[in-house]
Amino acid sequence: MNAIKYLSFIVITLIHCVLSAQHSAIKTSRTKFIRDIYTEALTKGHAFEDLRFLCKEIGARITGSTEAQMAIEWGQKKMTSYGLETRLHEIQVPHWERGTKEVFYIKTSGGVHTKLRGLALGGSVGTNGTLRGNLIEFESLDALKAASPALVKGKIVFVNQAMDAKQIQTFKAYGGCYPLRGNSASIASEKGAIASVIRSLGLASDPHPHTGSMYYANGVDKIPAAAICTADANKIHELFDSNPEQEIELVMEMDCRSYPDTKSYNVIGEIKGGEYSDEIITVGGHLDSWDTGEGAHDDGAGIIHCLEAFRILKKMNYQPQHTLRLVFFMNEENGNKGGKTYAKWVKENQEKHFAAIESDRGGFAPRGFTCDGSEEQVEWLKSLSPIFKEYDLHIFEKGYGGVDIGPLKESYPGIPLFGFVPDSQRYFDMHHSPNDVFENVNKRELELGAAAIASFIYVLDHKSP
Amino acid sequence: MNAIKYLSFIVITLIHCVLSAQHSAIKTSRTKFIRDIYTEALTKGHAFEDLRFLCKEIGARITGSTEAQMAIEWGQKKMTSYGLETRLHEIQVPHWERGTKEVFYIKTSGGVHTKLRGLALGGSVGTNGTLRGNLIEFESLDALKAASPALVKGKIVFVNQAMDAKQIQTFKAYGGCYPLRGNSASIASEKGAIASVIRSLGLASDPHPHTGSMYYANGVDKIPAAAICTADANKIHELFDSNPEQEIELVMEMDCRSYPDTKSYNVIGEIKGGEYSDEIITVGGHLDSWDTGEGAHDDGAGIIHCLEAFRILKKMNYQPQHTLRLVFFMNEENGNKGGKTYAKWVKENQEKHFAAIESDRGGFAPRGFTCDGSEEQVEWLKSLSPIFKEYDLHIFEKGYGGVDIGPLKESYPGIPLFGFVPDSQRYFDMHHSPNDVFENVNKRELELGAAAIASFIYVLDHKSP
Repeated sequence: MNAIKYLSFIVITLIHCVLSAQHSAIKTSRTKFIRDIYTEALTKGHAFEDLRFLCKEIGARITGSTEAQMAIEWGQKKMTSYGLETRLHEIQVPHWERGTKEVFYIKTSGGVHTKLRGLALGGSVGTNGTLRGNLIEFESLDALKAASPALVKGKIVFVNQAMDAKQIQTFKAYGGCYPLRGNSASIASEKGAIASVIRSLGLASDPHPHTGSMYYANGVDKIPAAAICTADANKIHELFDSNPEQEIELVMEMDCRSYPDTKSYNVIGEIKGGEYSDEIITVGGHLDSWDTGEGAHDDGAGIIHCLEAFRILKKMNYQPQHTLRLVFFMNEENGNKGGKTYAKWVKENQEKHFAAIESDRGGFAPRGFTCDGSEEQVEWLKSLSPIFKEYDLHIFEKGYGGVDIGPLKESYPGIPLFGFVPDSQRYFDMHHSPNDVFENVNKRELELGAAAIASFIYVLDHKSP
Repeated sequence: MNAIKYLSFIVITLIHCVLSAQHSAIKTSRTKFIRDIYTEALTKGHAFEDLRFLCKEIGARITGSTEAQMAIEWGQKKMTSYGLETRLHEIQVPHWERGTKEVFYIKTSGGVHTKLRGLALGGSVGTNGTLRGNLIEFESLDALKAASPALVKGKIVFVNQAMDAKQIQTFKAYGGCYPLRGNSASIASEKGAIASVIRSLGLASDPHPHTGSMYYANGVDKIPAAAICTADANKIHELFDSNPEQEIELVMEMDCRSYPDTKSYNVIGEIKGGEYSDEIITVGGHLDSWDTGEGAHDDGAGIIHCLEAFRILKKMNYQPQHTLRLVFFMNEENGNKGGKTYAKWVKENQEKHFAAIESDRGGFAPRGFTCDGSEEQVEWLKSLSPIFKEYDLHIFEKGYGGVDIGPLKESYPGIPLFGFVPDSQRYFDMHHSPNDVFENVNKRELELGAAAIASFIYVLDHKSP
């Protein structure tokens, strides 16, 4: 080996050593940073107390309500107190109210006379006093679609389609029943029904009715639409089953109604980026909830996950490369005006967006993240699996992002959308029901969710552009 | 190519096709069988109702109690009704009772006068009337060990060691505090203390005291031992913290006591194997519980997981290769006489054992299985990961088997022990406390656990010997 060759060899070896030491130092510092995030969340976290406040001191916060306004003000104040630069983003939103009257009972020719536990679906018209009609049961939305109008005319349609318990991920079972809630009333109305009642979208047989949004197709008569709890749905089914000939009269009163669209806000807080400050990572959930329960899992938990993630990053003096933007979206539940208007605004302002993350599947023990994006983006997500193994995260795969961040896909083609995935088994025991309260959220599970999201933001911020 | 070569080629190709078709047929039938197990568990399961009965109609069932005897009779009847060949396996067990008096309150020189929520630890002696003493707080068991006897003499020791919230798997945090419960009283007694009180082994700050077993070292004076709830432990700490000079008197009464050893039973049910009928797969949990709450997660859920797994396999007319033996072990909580005697009996009868599986970590959403076995056995376990991915199971690694099946390792060297791993986040909110009730078990999570175990038994039964 001559001198120059020898020198080259030494130089190359040194470069190799430096690079490999650098790489291993980056890995070590990443490992330590993530560990510190978890320690902060689990031992000095604010998540549980912040969620308690949102649930117990503000409560249910349907779009357009005074509570929604209070939540907006609370959200901005909280973000400011955690060191973010905040602003409100004005949007126009629908305004629907349940009113005060909501009663359902049945009378059968066989002598049964009993109340049902039900809720008007969001967007429904009221009954304008007491409404009476004979029930006709369909086992599915498809069965209703196939029914002859002669059978349905003048009756109250009851679509008793159960979520598929065989599905392991409960969101798949929900997806299978989702059209039932949105469309039953329109289809029933087209066939001459006077009202539409569905089996609540929940897996358990229990006394909690689940509300949710419904829509009237263009031109149909707007008939009242409600959901009754699964236990009562089973009861009605048994009544028909035991005597198919008997008449079951449903008596109902609801004075829900829609008001003119009104003004509301998305709440925005930012940590300015460094090298890529013009590229934004949006992180959020939705601040509105249904008007029953406390919106604890849906989506109080998601709001708190993201808020706590930003608080932790700030507390750790993290200087991001990209600009991190926390968004509390308004109106996910009945219109998604927050998400749609945000995406429009992003486009109008010609902002550059790097990625978006949403948490809107509850506050349960974390399982991982899904990616709505290109094959490369999904591959990148999959590559994170070893980093998060010790934190019990294992789902890193192609999948849904979220309703609020969904419209960004059209405004900003190519943006990867990431959805946080907690365990799904208990979610539909609470979702949109009076059962969605703070008591049903576990402190550690919530904290682990916040830590997972803070860690994910950190890793994403270090992803090569 | 000559005729013979050509013929050989054809034959080899045919064999290859047949083998590969066979292999793929086996895989398809395995996939279908597991899917059918899950469908049965999730749509026609008995698990939830069986657990309700065990919790609500029998209730807490500490070793030696009448409820434990009722649980034994129920267990045998249930196994028989599900088509198993059953028998009782007689064992000698300890018999400790809490009695009826259990009161704790504190009085401070600063005027605080308040009750505490506490429980005697299992195995403790009573106070023989009212016992009074000044508290001395230690932040850990190690601090107590290091303390001078002069400081401790005549006092009531309070070991306020918290479980480590930073641990992701809560069982690790439990493991770190476990010696505290077992040994504090002996160490305190050696230094002249008149009683020992510990902070409950739970992660949440809440009003539920957690009991559990404690032991007296040979020759020490037996002093009363209790645990107070974490919320009260925090309160006492704050009192000391706010004024380190003040005296805090603890007044306590407990009339718990030990009775002579008595007779009890393991409950055994079998499905006779085919080709390897002389090789046994033991599957079980423990039928006894603590005497507070209902033993719903600990270990009602484990008992039901295994019972339901056998019911499903029987209902599907599954003919196992190995003999499947379901064991409801007695006395895991305060002596493990069921597990120890079973292992001894296995050895005496020179039985051949293929593997053992235990469920004793609660009824939460399944995460996977751990293996206490050889490297090869662990590798086999890891190879199952792809089969169970669609069922959201992801932990397949080296780890603990279980207390009940543990002694088999010595009786039958080389046996692999498998532990079922559900999510651990909520477990220590209930464990050994009045909070461990049926209401805190989720139906689907329990059913998924039973399906995971039934599927695991099936796959294990097909493992090459």
